[in-house]
Amino acid sequence: MIQIKQFGTLHLIPVGLSSTLADQWLPEATQRCAGLLTHYIAENAKTARAFLKTMPLQHALQDIVMHELNSKIDPTTIQSWLEPLKLGIDMGLVSEAGCPAVADPGARAVAIAHQWGAKVKPWVGPSSILLALMASGLEGQRFTFHGYAPIKPDERAKQIKQWESISALQNQTQLLIETPYRNVAMFETLIKSLKGNTMLCVAIDLTGPNESIRTLSVAQWSNQPIPVVNDRPALFLFQAALSANVVRANPTKKA
Amino acid sequence: MIQIKQFGTLHLIPVGLSSTLADQWLPEATQRCAGLLTHYIAENAKTARAFLKTMPLQHALQDIVMHELNSKIDPTTIQSWLEPLKLGIDMGLVSEAGCPAVADPGARAVAIAHQWGAKVKPWVGPSSILLALMASGLEGQRFTFHGYAPIKPDERAKQIKQWESISALQNQTQLLIETPYRNVAMFETLIKSLKGNTMLCVAIDLTGPNESIRTLSVAQWSNQPIPVVNDRPALFLFQAALSANVVRANPTKKA
Repeated sequence: MIQIKQFGTLHLIPVGLSSTLADQWLPEATQRCAGLLTHYIAENAKTARAFLKTMPLQHALQDIVMHELNSKIDPTTIQSWLEPLKLGIDMGLVSEAGCPAVADPGARAVAIAHQWGAKVKPWVGPSSILLALMASGLEGQRFTFHGYAPIKPDERAKQIKQWESISALQNQTQLLIETPYRNVAMFETLIKSLKGNTMLCVAIDLTGPNESIRTLSVAQWSNQPIPVVNDRPALFLFQAALSANVVRANPTKKA
Repeated sequence: MIQIKQFGTLHLIPVGLSSTLADQWLPEATQRCAGLLTHYIAENAKTARAFLKTMPLQHALQDIVMHELNSKIDPTTIQSWLEPLKLGIDMGLVSEAGCPAVADPGARAVAIAHQWGAKVKPWVGPSSILLALMASGLEGQRFTFHGYAPIKPDERAKQIKQWESISALQNQTQLLIETPYRNVAMFETLIKSLKGNTMLCVAIDLTGPNESIRTLSVAQWSNQPIPVVNDRPALFLFQAALSANVVRANPTKKA
């Protein structure tokens, strides 16, 4: 008789973007699942434990196995962490903020689960990228998330202009993030590099008490006080005016 | 004395992707907000009312003002629908499925709210694009959502190959959707057009009872039964092997 190997499931659990209470941003089912799991892979073990303390935990926090995943960990180590899946034990993956495997190294663990044929379950929760895109009023039918722009000023300005051209040609919103201490410099580069009629959205402290999402043209922003500070998370989104020779793509229907 | 005009807030309320109960995919705060609002703009009034029936409604359903937004409605009409914001009345925007203003025409209403200086509040809820990306195990640090591929077979194959080249050059995941009745044709085009070592994720019925998310190489998929059917929503994601001359971008940190 052939024994069918039953893998555990890798649960992808979003965590908060701010200090607001979880009922504001996490469905009850996600909270219940987070409280049940005994094995976690986390981008940051300290913030993951702080998150779990606010969940309906079914186990003592110190009994929960926690591995810390960064981009330097080798694949063999990640595989060894995922071994419990082979024993039928469910595991959790959490990011430092928001949804795991988006804008963090978590996809490396998810890819191994797929190689093994284990089930991967994404749970609903907050994503700064998605919340900013929804609230920007910019094109949500085509968009690119770039992560970080280059750091060197000349490369950065050149890259931003290139993304602006792509936005104009493909009628596409461009999204990028920055480490908080460079927010002001990033905003200034955007204002200097983008065209006056390009629409720029600045989204700050999403789901937090100081949430602010504003979309203005670059020309309008030039006459405003700088909206970002260097100690709060911000996202930058922009959409260029369509190139004259581009026929607007047909409006799409929701999947 | 100058009177400060206090606008109402435009609340962006995600709705379900499947028939599963809302506690599975909607935070309590989002449900409370949905139940409080008296004025809605919806992509589909019928599905919006069905959604509201499952929310903790504070008003009779028939008393809730509901406008139906599609891509053909002119901007002046949308502005007239948003007039209550000017009176300080909060309004809701809902899509036919998932998050409003992403892969639907909702951004047009959000853009007007920004023009007026009204506050826009994005609430947490399910997005098939985000859930599929999380669970794909593909690159989550750089990605593009394209909406729909062209319909004509030759244009479609050409476009998919072009997106594959961009994926290889920029180490970027490519996401697209299809109307359910073309799912099988889309899957077959992907298998024929993409390289054998490109990783392809097929995500079906997200948050639903038949949720299935699998990532295999195109070569592996060729030896499998076709995973999609023509009556369930599916998303397709792929990531090409990196071009040999591309240095992998630095791993990014979460915003």
